[in-house]
Parts: sequence; C-alpha cells; structure tokens
Amino acid sequence: MDLCSKKLPLRSKYKGICEKKCYREKGHTGACSEFPYIADLAKNHPRVKNKIIRDATMTTGAAWKSEDAGPNRIPRQVMLQTDAVLLDYGLKMKALKPSVVAKLREKAATYEDCMSVAVKLTWLAYQMPDAPTCPKDIKNYLEKRYGTMAANSTPCIICKEPLSFSLFENAKRGKAEIETAHSNPREHNDINVGFAHRECNIAQGNKTLDEFYDWIIGILVRAGKIRL
Amino acid sequence: MDLCSKKLPLRSKYKGICEKKCYREKGHTGACSEFPYIADLAKNHPRVKNKIIRDATMTTGAAWKSEDAGPNRIPRQVMLQTDAVLLDYGLKMKALKPSVVAKLREKAATYEDCMSVAVKLTWLAYQMPDAPTCPKDIKNYLEKRYGTMAANSTPCIICKEPLSFSLFENAKRGKAEIETAHSNPREHNDINVGFAHRECNIAQGNKTLDEFYDWIIGILVRAGKIRL
Repeated sequence: MDLCSKKLPLRSKYKGICEKKCYREKGHTGACSEFPYIADLAKNHPRVKNKIIRDATMTTGAAWKSEDAGPNRIPRQVMLQTDAVLLDYGLKMKALKPSVVAKLREKAATYEDCMSVAVKLTWLAYQMPDAPTCPKDIKNYLEKRYGTMAANSTPCIICKEPLSFSLFENAKRGKAEIETAHSNPREHNDINVGFAHRECNIAQGNKTLDEFYDWIIGILVRAGKIRL
Repeated sequence: MDLCSKKLPLRSKYKGICEKKCYREKGHTGACSEFPYIADLAKNHPRVKNKIIRDATMTTGAAWKSEDAGPNRIPRQVMLQTDAVLLDYGLKMKALKPSVVAKLREKAATYEDCMSVAVKLTWLAYQMPDAPTCPKDIKNYLEKRYGTMAANSTPCIICKEPLSFSLFENAKRGKAEIETAHSNPREHNDINVGFAHRECNIAQGNKTLDEFYDWIIGILVRAGKIRL
C-alpha cells in the first residue's frame, strides 16, 4: 500500500528528533492521520488502543522511582540518538546505571518500525477470539498491509494458546493479562512482534523464543520430565 | 536435635505478636542465640546471611511505592494475625487492594517454620559449588538438623543446574541472581524451600513446580518442539 506520508506537526518535547507522518493511503480525502486504522478501537476499546500505540512507539516505563531509574516512557525513536544529542533534551544517559542504559537502548527503534508494529498489533488484535467486529474500511486497510484476516487466529506467540480479546481488560496487580511480546526481545519490528499472556512473556524474559524453548527443554530433561 | 528454646527479648514493634527463641542446642554453654549457625556467614558473607534471614522470616518487599502497595518486609509470623489484631499494629489490611492482601497473606508462616527454613537454607548454601568451608561446629549443628552435607550438591530447585555460591554476590539491576524459591510458593517450610536462579524463579511464578513443569511441557508440545 502506498501511504500519504505527509509530515505532521509534533507537539512532543522531542519534536526536534522525532518524526510524525500520515499513515492514510496515498490520495486519501479528508484530514491526514497518523493512526487511521485505530479509530474504532479508540472509540470502543480505548484501553486497547492506548496499549497498542504505547507499546508500539514508546519505551517501557521505569520499574521503580529513583534518581537513576531512567526516564519513564519516551518515544523509541528518541533512543536512536547519541548520548550527546539526548543531553540537549535533558536525558543524562551517563548518569544512569549501565543496566538501565542497556535496557533503554534495547528499546530503540525507527519511527517506521514503530508504526509498522502498531498496524501489525491492530491486525492481530482483531483476529483474537472475542474480538470486536472490524469496520470494513479499517479491515480493508489492515488487510492491504498484512494480509487476509481470519477470526480466532491470533494465539499467544509464546505458548500458542488462544488469546481472548477480553484479557486486555483483565488486570492482575495493575497489569493487563495480555502483553506485547517479541520473538527476539531486542528487535522491535512487525515481523518480530505479537501478543502474549503476561505470564508467558515474563517466563520468556530477555531470551529469544528459540532460546526460551531450548532452555525449558533443558529444564524438563534435567528434572526427569521428558527424554530427548 | 533438642533445642534450648529459651524465649529471647524482642525489640520489634510487633513484639506483642512475635516469638523469638534460642536455637542453640539444649544444654549449651554461653549466651543464647536465635541464629547460632549463621555466625560464619555473618562474618565472611554478610549479604548471604542477611538474605537467608530475610527470606526465611520476612514477607517480600513492596514492589512499588504507593498508598496501597502494602507494608515493606514485615515478619511472616505477623501475617498469621487477623485484620483486627493487625489494625492495632498500624496495618490497615482493609485499605489494601485484595491482590496485595492475598500476596501478603500467602507469605504467612509460623515462627517455627521460618526458623526451620533459615537452617535449611544455610545447610543448602554450604553445599553449593564455590561455597566457603563450613566451620566444624556449624557443620555439626546443620548436619544434626538436616543430614550429612556433601560438596556441590545444591542445585537450582527448578532447573536442576548447579548454583554457584558466587551468584549470591552477582546482581543484575539490583537483584541477586540467586533467589529463595518454593516448590509450592504458597507453603513456607523447610521441606518446600530451596534456592533457584532468579530467572527460573521468575518463570515459575506462582505455580507449584509440578504445575510449572506441566505448563512448559504444554508450551513445547503446542510449539511443535516435543511430542508426548
């Protein structure tokens, strides 16, 4: 699909180092929009819409509050900049613990990749069991980007069990039961991304999916539960 | 082993609802002591000593700071008391989220169980690869409680790989790489407790070990990695 790609005005404090473009189809009528395909979720499932945009475009939140915990949720594209540039934007990378810096830098992704992830996640969300019906124009847009959509065809990328759309609303200890997950946690792009149960995502940790499967095979062999 | 069991004075704010006893052998000479077997670790590996006593006797820390996050690290035996009694000690259980209350109540354990866990963990720590040599009097005490000690015989209770004593000192993002783990996370006693890699303990989550193994077998079957 050819996209409009017109540059859109940014209000972020990081606007000097961030992009924002129109992702409507080229030649569209009416106003430009960065997330045209999310309108229906925005209206009927705002929590899901917020989650998709946040996970696609932002780094994770600081896990605790302290001087060196690092900034809370900043655009992933900002993390592509050098320490020197970030200093101009008030981000003192050198003041952070190396482990925090590594965690932040790991989340770096181009604007294009972030935007592709947002489309892919929306495409996946509409294919979950219990998902709302996708309006025709949005379905048309999503299918042009990622192919034909089929009901009940989005499993947890880790455990392969079905992921009910309703789990987006469930929360344990303030955390939704569905998380955005990565086959390789260090690559944020549309090929590598999907949804997972929170407990599966936690178990996978920072391993790739292949590393995770190999790891748990080893555990089961040593525990005498399976034989290779 | 018969224990002295003399009641010892408590300085805790919870002293009205906590026990403290001498765990030296009955008929000992010299002063009473609650943790006689930990003296060598206290001197040479204070971080390990602190971890063992903390994990054995205290609830976990509050994961984040907020009004309803619950109290940070209180004696497990305190959590055996009713809401009404706890209120007298400034713990407003009814003001906490049900999920926080459940997490705290899950950590409840009798003083006797906590003390047995501390002995068992010390016994296990001295049997790790790289563990310091156990002084003869302490070894004698520990073996009377839990049987003959053998070098290199303490694996991770989850993945069954060796757990090097040196991992106690390693810390990623402020967390030691060894954690106290439970075959059944809802039972805090000497039979049920051991050490595990942090990543294994995180993966196990609040499942029992058997549930965890069954769960990961299911994942591997559905992912096409093993056949039953």
